[in-house]
Amino acid sequence: MHTQYDAIIVGAGVIGCSIAYNLSKRGRKVIVLERGKIAGKASSAAAGMLGAQTELEEDSPLFQFAKASRAMFPQLEKDLKGLSGIDIEFQQNGIYKVAMTEEEVSRIQRLIPAQQELGEMSEWIPAAELHVKEPALSKDTLGAMFIRNDGQVSSPALTMAFATAATTLGAEIHEYTDVHHLIEENERITGVKTNQGSFHADHVIVAGGAWSEQLLQEAGVELPTYPVKGECFSLKTKRRLVNGTIFSNEVYIVPKPGNQLIIGATEKPGTFDESVTVEGISSLMEKMQQVVPAIKEAAWERAWAGIRPQSADSLPYMGTHPDKEGLYIATGHYRNGILLAPKTGELIADLIDGKQVQDDWFSAFQTKRTSLHV
Amino acid sequence: MHTQYDAIIVGAGVIGCSIAYNLSKRGRKVIVLERGKIAGKASSAAAGMLGAQTELEEDSPLFQFAKASRAMFPQLEKDLKGLSGIDIEFQQNGIYKVAMTEEEVSRIQRLIPAQQELGEMSEWIPAAELHVKEPALSKDTLGAMFIRNDGQVSSPALTMAFATAATTLGAEIHEYTDVHHLIEENERITGVKTNQGSFHADHVIVAGGAWSEQLLQEAGVELPTYPVKGECFSLKTKRRLVNGTIFSNEVYIVPKPGNQLIIGATEKPGTFDESVTVEGISSLMEKMQQVVPAIKEAAWERAWAGIRPQSADSLPYMGTHPDKEGLYIATGHYRNGILLAPKTGELIADLIDGKQVQDDWFSAFQTKRTSLHV
Amino acid sequence: MHTQYDAIIVGAGVIGCSIAYNLSKRGRKVIVLERGKIAGKASSAAAGMLGAQTELEEDSPLFQFAKASRAMFPQLEKDLKGLSGIDIEFQQNGIYKVAMTEEEVSRIQRLIPAQQELGEMSEWIPAAELHVKEPALSKDTLGAMFIRNDGQVSSPALTMAFATAATTLGAEIHEYTDVHHLIEENERITGVKTNQGSFHADHVIVAGGAWSEQLLQEAGVELPTYPVKGECFSLKTKRRLVNGTIFSNEVYIVPKPGNQLIIGATEKPGTFDESVTVEGISSLMEKMQQVVPAIKEAAWERAWAGIRPQSADSLPYMGTHPDKEGLYIATGHYRNGILLAPKTGELIADLIDGKQVQDDWFSAFQTKRTSLHV
Amino acid sequence: MHTQYDAIIVGAGVIGCSIAYNLSKRGRKVIVLERGKIAGKASSAAAGMLGAQTELEEDSPLFQFAKASRAMFPQLEKDLKGLSGIDIEFQQNGIYKVAMTEEEVSRIQRLIPAQQELGEMSEWIPAAELHVKEPALSKDTLGAMFIRNDGQVSSPALTMAFATAATTLGAEIHEYTDVHHLIEENERITGVKTNQGSFHADHVIVAGGAWSEQLLQEAGVELPTYPVKGECFSLKTKRRLVNGTIFSNEVYIVPKPGNQLIIGATEKPGTFDESVTVEGISSLMEKMQQVVPAIKEAAWERAWAGIRPQSADSLPYMGTHPDKEGLYIATGHYRNGILLAPKTGELIADLIDGKQVQDDWFSAFQTKRTSLHV
Repeated sequence: MHTQYDAIIVGAGVIGCSIAYNLSKRGRKVIVLERGKIAGKASSAAAGMLGAQTELEEDSPLFQFAKASRAMFPQLEKDLKGLSGIDIEFQQNGIYKVAMTEEEVSRIQRLIPAQQELGEMSEWIPAAELHVKEPALSKDTLGAMFIRNDGQVSSPALTMAFATAATTLGAEIHEYTDVHHLIEENERITGVKTNQGSFHADHVIVAGGAWSEQLLQEAGVELPTYPVKGECFSLKTKRRLVNGTIFSNEVYIVPKPGNQLIIGATEKPGTFDESVTVEGISSLMEKMQQVVPAIKEAAWERAWAGIRPQSADSLPYMGTHPDKEGLYIATGHYRNGILLAPKTGELIADLIDGKQVQDDWFSAFQTKRTSLHV
Repeated sequence: MHTQYDAIIVGAGVIGCSIAYNLSKRGRKVIVLERGKIAGKASSAAAGMLGAQTELEEDSPLFQFAKASRAMFPQLEKDLKGLSGIDIEFQQNGIYKVAMTEEEVSRIQRLIPAQQELGEMSEWIPAAELHVKEPALSKDTLGAMFIRNDGQVSSPALTMAFATAATTLGAEIHEYTDVHHLIEENERITGVKTNQGSFHADHVIVAGGAWSEQLLQEAGVELPTYPVKGECFSLKTKRRLVNGTIFSNEVYIVPKPGNQLIIGATEKPGTFDESVTVEGISSLMEKMQQVVPAIKEAAWERAWAGIRPQSADSLPYMGTHPDKEGLYIATGHYRNGILLAPKTGELIADLIDGKQVQDDWFSAFQTKRTSLHV
Repeated sequence: MHTQYDAIIVGAGVIGCSIAYNLSKRGRKVIVLERGKIAGKASSAAAGMLGAQTELEEDSPLFQFAKASRAMFPQLEKDLKGLSGIDIEFQQNGIYKVAMTEEEVSRIQRLIPAQQELGEMSEWIPAAELHVKEPALSKDTLGAMFIRNDGQVSSPALTMAFATAATTLGAEIHEYTDVHHLIEENERITGVKTNQGSFHADHVIVAGGAWSEQLLQEAGVELPTYPVKGECFSLKTKRRLVNGTIFSNEVYIVPKPGNQLIIGATEKPGTFDESVTVEGISSLMEKMQQVVPAIKEAAWERAWAGIRPQSADSLPYMGTHPDKEGLYIATGHYRNGILLAPKTGELIADLIDGKQVQDDWFSAFQTKRTSLHV
Repeated sequence: MHTQYDAIIVGAGVIGCSIAYNLSKRGRKVIVLERGKIAGKASSAAAGMLGAQTELEEDSPLFQFAKASRAMFPQLEKDLKGLSGIDIEFQQNGIYKVAMTEEEVSRIQRLIPAQQELGEMSEWIPAAELHVKEPALSKDTLGAMFIRNDGQVSSPALTMAFATAATTLGAEIHEYTDVHHLIEENERITGVKTNQGSFHADHVIVAGGAWSEQLLQEAGVELPTYPVKGECFSLKTKRRLVNGTIFSNEVYIVPKPGNQLIIGATEKPGTFDESVTVEGISSLMEKMQQVVPAIKEAAWERAWAGIRPQSADSLPYMGTHPDKEGLYIATGHYRNGILLAPKTGELIADLIDGKQVQDDWFSAFQTKRTSLHV
């Protein structure tokens, strides 16, 4: 039996599932091929911060793209709940970028006017006010930038919601299906070979996160991406300890439903090893206690790690393959996969639909960037 | 240190946590004492059907109480989300009471006029229409009563949401705290002795589900309750298999978010043993495949059991102790603990506040029922 | 840094780890590269029967090889315990091949003389005696062939013991390392490319079970292997229910330490999907209750599946690549990977050492079999 | 139905199961009643050190009792394996009591002659030699006392092996059975009342660990015991990191089969709360890295806690009730429950058999100690 699909998506992480959802919504016949399980890797590991302003401090195409993606969550929450039954746990509770030294105070305060010029809500909260709003913060915190619009979701819930909504709209998702090769006919990619047989489609989208490399190399694209491990753990408190997300030097504390906290994340480049090390836990534990001392009484739940795809210029790859028709790439989202997933799904669907993609985004995220292909 | 509480609640299941939430909302200083963990027993095991009409087929105080409790869920969903961040996964997707034999057709059809007279939405769906609405149902199903207003929630989520919301409103919850004795002074219950010391309060509420017996006996109330084990399991399908809950002879199939199904439940009286038996799984598997044959392709997730408190006359106990001032009892909710929890919390809070409780409810659920205390 | 190894082993299942153990024992510098985790796939899923005679009913090179491998376990148990601390749970408690119909009685009885001629201990146990030895067997069992020397081990323990012992002897095991390509220089395989960089060695052994295909294809060997899913589950009884392993028509019941039973296994060819289906559990449950009715009271533990590599002629592939020097293959062990692992490790180590391998084994298991390469 | 047992044991931890095993071996009809699951509490939490000399530094009845119990393990390992199939993972790999300061050097060196006088193998290992034997130890370690005969077992395996062996010998174990009251007739304890009905026996043994209090109070014995929480976690290394157990100031590192390490244990008196705190993990992580710096690369597995029963004079209670015939008590083993379990089982069985118990043990461990009952 030879089934022809409109699109094959390689990878059922948050990016692949968002693309599947967007294409299915537009009536496309879609299949997602996933080597392991849906949301089995980095997409379940992320703490789910929607840190458009927290992570990206200056104006740039990525900053604008992140803001646009962030703005999609309120509606997305409703749509995905309706189609999948899953609550993505969207909270717009703000993020505090905390300063512990005078140097950090200066550095963070300098960011505020620039963000305000861009029309963003971000303000300096001086120590006294900060300790009223977040009484659990260490007395050593000297103030914080509060970013009202940065929020958070549950990363595994968001990924499962995209996936379930896509199946409700007709998409197929095949787990335990390992894509070995792209099928090429006359300079055009027309399908993939897997350990479960061949699949054919007009469009093939590689959205395999840090595991995209092998297929991309085969397609002749040497995208300079590399894996970066991030280690996290979760805790439980007897009552709500912090109201907003606390973002400090090399650690963040994200309050989740049910008095849970997610603490993250280390940065270990160059490894696919998903084990959590003593060193990683030790270092996060030390830093989080400096910012929120009372966290020492919290109860341990569990630790995990995710492998995120980073690119040489720290920008994601989202676009068509420069030479091979029918091939699309969406990877390299690094720490911002959750935040960028809604807009990435839309952008790839637009490309497939032949719709115009905003010029500066197209240039910034294309796979053939001048800086990389001399 | 001697802390005086307004109310001590024994048991952090769905009933105890609902009471804690209701009392905290009214400004009461509350402590919940739980031998194990919050939602650690039957409250996490339930499939979460809100089967006011499914389970209770005729008019009665319990039927009216159940309807009133069911009606509270839409608002409760919002309130608990706001206070706890937890989505209780409330769905008003209806329940099909399916007939597989002509005898069942007759029996079920006879129920409809009575329910309609009570102003309830319930209608007979003939086979042809049923197979359009629920194509996965066996061709052997001869029709079904569809109960539009019966819905469902996630039982563990509801319990955790009550608990978290209560702590947000100021309640304390002490896990791993085993209540050994009631403290009595001058015919009045004034506190409890636990393995973590004594606690004192104006009101003590025993809401320990099937484990309430020992404390009640000590208080001189021989409430004729007994444990009934229910075994369940969950499955995962590639896409949505059924739209409404399917309720058949000795098995129900409840569709959950993310293409999950919960299958339940056996009825094994007289045991506290929480292990799941081969016999239980075999029997549920056989019956569910008769109703929904394609379920055989579903993927296994896990099995579990819960121990539910049943009473001799199948009515819950909700009320004051007949003789001992300060002592309240809320147990015996059997298969309907999730459904009845919102109204139970309100009723007990009303009693403590000295508010009037609806007469027929007061009589029907009181601990000193004429039929039991000759 | 360019490290040169004596041998690279692709796959840390029971076959790869046995090879690593054998080579390390002989002083070789070995590295094992594993895409996921040690013993993460079929090697942890197997029930661990050492069914040399149960599975293989007639004389053949494979039968002789299996017997030779089985004979290694008593010493192996001691050696691995010493080097790894891990008990492989070796039990020589015998296997009953049970007859439920007169036809099965005839078929099974015919096997006995042939096995006895081969010097094997196998005897017919008539119904009356059988029900004394194994009182839990159904009264419908008409007798059984008892195979005294067939025993069992814990499959995950055996695999972890091989792996740990190998590291104690100096081997390296890299988890989360995905081998993408073989490195070939002058018709000779000299290493592999992985997602964690390149590794170089004099000998490369592909022992990736059902996942070996991609690398083998690339090496120009079209080994006709295919995956066969096997589903299992485990139960717990209050006391020992059966003494020997019960092997019946399409189900086996393996008694494990601590009153545990492992029940297996379905056979679903052509899929890598590791989910356990309702159909699989239902069918095993029905069959096991026919043989041992009292098993219905057992407590459920958990279910799992493994993907086993089967070959077209049902014989494993163990040998050198026909054309490419330096490349070795060990896969296709299907249901007998645990049983055959000790001898397979020795055979591959012998080939690498240039030692003589028994002629009929060499021919039977070589990758270039006349029957397959016309 | 009224079944009469020779002995009822309350509690299926390591002490209760050892008593059940010993009584069953002597032909007694035994039932064990356990509120939760076998080995569900402290007996599964312990790291399993057999630290007779490590924990007890001077001669005393408890020291002699501990040594006698330790001496039972080699034979016990064989007996339990035969009866249960379970390997208790007994290793006599020695314990290093490590000195990090000159003060510790002096203190530890002073212990050696005393132990040698008692005929014990314990020796001072100077720094240079120590770093050869245990190269992973910090260069800051100044030497260690090596206790050759102190070893270790797997605590959950030992408990399950006692329990399984007992059932093989005829004992019954009822899980999920909560003992509410003792039954007393004519100053004699003749049975217990539980949530699953009444049980009758000639002898009732309370072996409920930290949970024994309620029953004992009811029997009029105010044994001054209190709970002490201990937090632990386990790690995995790529190869064996330490050979013996490392015992340092407030932390121990126990090497387990399969390159696993168990790290323990904090001491938090007065709580039954089994959650693991950030503070506990932080503090163990800091201390263990001081002793074995390379442990920072180890992979995290999981954390847990156990609640151990401590007595006022730090001695266990093992004996008859002073006034009530038929009642026996075995609790208060604190950090040494695993080590003392074999001999405790024998001692209680001897008391029930009317055999002579060594005088100094009888006096030291009796429930009516002069120091406590003025």
